[in-house]
Amino acid sequence: MGADPVLRQIAVKTRRSDELIDLTAEINREIQSAGIRTGLCHLSVLHTTAALIVNEAEPGLCEDFLATMTRLVPVDPSYAHPDGNGHAHIKAALLGSSQTLQIRDGVLHLGTWQSVFLVEFDGPRERHIAVCLIPA
Amino acid sequence: MGADPVLRQIAVKTRRSDELIDLTAEINREIQSAGIRTGLCHLSVLHTTAALIVNEAEPGLCEDFLATMTRLVPVDPSYAHPDGNGHAHIKAALLGSSQTLQIRDGVLHLGTWQSVFLVEFDGPRERHIAVCLIPA
Amino acid sequence: MGADPVLRQIAVKTRRSDELIDLTAEINREIQSAGIRTGLCHLSVLHTTAALIVNEAEPGLCEDFLATMTRLVPVDPSYAHPDGNGHAHIKAALLGSSQTLQIRDGVLHLGTWQSVFLVEFDGPRERHIAVCLIPA
Repeated sequence: MGADPVLRQIAVKTRRSDELIDLTAEINREIQSAGIRTGLCHLSVLHTTAALIVNEAEPGLCEDFLATMTRLVPVDPSYAHPDGNGHAHIKAALLGSSQTLQIRDGVLHLGTWQSVFLVEFDGPRERHIAVCLIPA
Repeated sequence: MGADPVLRQIAVKTRRSDELIDLTAEINREIQSAGIRTGLCHLSVLHTTAALIVNEAEPGLCEDFLATMTRLVPVDPSYAHPDGNGHAHIKAALLGSSQTLQIRDGVLHLGTWQSVFLVEFDGPRERHIAVCLIPA
Repeated sequence: MGADPVLRQIAVKTRRSDELIDLTAEINREIQSAGIRTGLCHLSVLHTTAALIVNEAEPGLCEDFLATMTRLVPVDPSYAHPDGNGHAHIKAALLGSSQTLQIRDGVLHLGTWQSVFLVEFDGPRERHIAVCLIPA
């Protein structure tokens, strides 16, 4: 691991209150522009009402996933959190704010059906994702 | 961090639709065969209906865990995802597809009761786990 | 990545059965004392009834989060796990035992509202968190 890590930040504009946005192509462009063939990619969404997941980029599934999250953690005026978005914080904490992924052959090492998604739970907003690419 | 990372892939045959399979001993064998004493171990299951977790290898608990996941995200013919396994995708996304663990003294640095599990939600199948061992 | 990683362990005494404890300041002190400006910070709680999350340090939200976890995975005498704390194991497995975070400018690279929390589900106890700081 001789070379320095490459630090980047990605900005994403979301358009709905709840939304999945596929980041895979953009992350792969960052890896390619950094010229990294092998290593790790760490992604961290810098917010408390959004998350990062890895799953399949199939529109029906995205809809099912967001509906399930709302069923498990509904909007509820009785939350003690004062800003009216307690549900969005709890959903984000359940999923997690970061992902670590392997880089092999100059791209994210993912399975055939895997994509990396930003999960918006309190949009629309501009979201920022810190990217740390570690060559190895 | 002078040495190169060691990239491996593990194949696991699952035997039931929902199942927990303890990977700890196999991962430790990979670390030992790579001769790594200190570093990080990144594991990534390359599928969208399986996950990786860390918890206790106690049969009753494994049963409770899988039953709870099914209670939270039941099989439901009304999912928009077309393949009949929407529940398995959603359960996998809730838990996550990867784990990063520390290596100390030539083994995974885990607590007394911790094991690393593959979680099958749509078996039986052959599953593949990408292993990246980073010496430090 | 020339320098060696810094391995530490943090001990935390929890005081309630369910509790969120903000570790951010203590982790930042470890990073500062190690003299690391850029890199990764890997945290692993070495127990199976506690977890690590990243979210906002707002007391009402902490209360909402713990109440939601109890609603989703209630205490239930019918669990097969023999120790009476099956609910705590399942809640911990849902959230995860580790977090990987970026270090930039000598501190954890977090968003304005993000803090790192130990989540206790079976306290009060002393909990141990393995810290691996990787300079880059």
